[in-house]
Amino acid sequence: MSDAPKSQNIVWHGAEVTQAQREALIGQKGAVVWLTGLSGSGKSTVCRRVEQKLLERKKFVYVLDGDNIRMGLNKDLGFSPDDRKENIRRIGCVAQLFADAGAIVLTAFISPYRADRDTARALLAPGRFCEAFVSTSLEACEARDPKGLYVKARAGKIPEFTGISAPYEAPESAELVVQTEGKTVDESADQVIAWLETNGFFA
Amino acid sequence: MSDAPKSQNIVWHGAEVTQAQREALIGQKGAVVWLTGLSGSGKSTVCRRVEQKLLERKKFVYVLDGDNIRMGLNKDLGFSPDDRKENIRRIGCVAQLFADAGAIVLTAFISPYRADRDTARALLAPGRFCEAFVSTSLEACEARDPKGLYVKARAGKIPEFTGISAPYEAPESAELVVQTEGKTVDESADQVIAWLETNGFFA
Repeated sequence: MSDAPKSQNIVWHGAEVTQAQREALIGQKGAVVWLTGLSGSGKSTVCRRVEQKLLERKKFVYVLDGDNIRMGLNKDLGFSPDDRKENIRRIGCVAQLFADAGAIVLTAFISPYRADRDTARALLAPGRFCEAFVSTSLEACEARDPKGLYVKARAGKIPEFTGISAPYEAPESAELVVQTEGKTVDESADQVIAWLETNGFFA
Repeated sequence: MSDAPKSQNIVWHGAEVTQAQREALIGQKGAVVWLTGLSGSGKSTVCRRVEQKLLERKKFVYVLDGDNIRMGLNKDLGFSPDDRKENIRRIGCVAQLFADAGAIVLTAFISPYRADRDTARALLAPGRFCEAFVSTSLEACEARDPKGLYVKARAGKIPEFTGISAPYEAPESAELVVQTEGKTVDESADQVIAWLETNGFFA
């Protein structure tokens, strides 16, 4: 697909309210924290804890979750490479909209392909995208197996399962590497929050 | 497409933070105000004014705009009936996510098909969706023609142009009918804000 929109006769609508104005009014800066890692690595759990902690600080935050979004926006997509690519493309666009709205949006998707994550990154202004590699090892993820998916994948009952029968391309220069092994959920969540704080998103 | 998601092995992820908690923390209720009407009817203009006024009241509000969203999320879609349907389906899903986040989201799309608008409505809990018919007449829209599209459509240069060569199904029971003819933008915007206020969205 080319980068140009397929539809003609459209113009970028000049918003009378800018992102900067929205941010000033709600007292924070829009950002995308893009968690990536294997199934069972702890992406959703960390996101939900960050969400909880930021809401307690009155921040406007929202989690886009792989499992949730596939019930709605991306319910027409499966797990083939093409569908995974389109899945991540759409999520990147939605995350961009939330960040434009001034929200801190956390995304919790395996997002195994480096190129797809780079596509999501490219939608944001420099500095607004935090690739957060949840680096839990395959062994630890498989030992946790919270949804029983690894057992099924090893039995050949799930095709194209990341880490088993489909590739995972680990980030090479993530803004953040989130450790979960030997750490509490709070500690992992605090790593993310510290990054946001250090980088000035709680204006 | 069936209502069931194509992908298997997914579960609705139990959010540790509920919509009600998010709303309590930010002091408002999530809602979708779905503006529908002909090209040039004033949907985007009214939305932007509502956005400006609500932000001044420190409300978390965001506009999803037909022209804007086609640059990103829906840039793979054209204007055939199938593409229009998918366009609205995706936008409905994104609007639902914003409302779930606690935001007041305004959408400004022609959305000519009744069935598609009903699909967007069905994604929201009862009472959270406001269909707002921007009822500007074809004659007035064509006289305004802010983007010069009616001239092109009449000359046969734009196929499937709503109101000229493609149908517009007016709402039969919209929550709100927004008048723009003989009114100021402020007056039209205030109609929308009054609906939100009356229906308890500024908790």
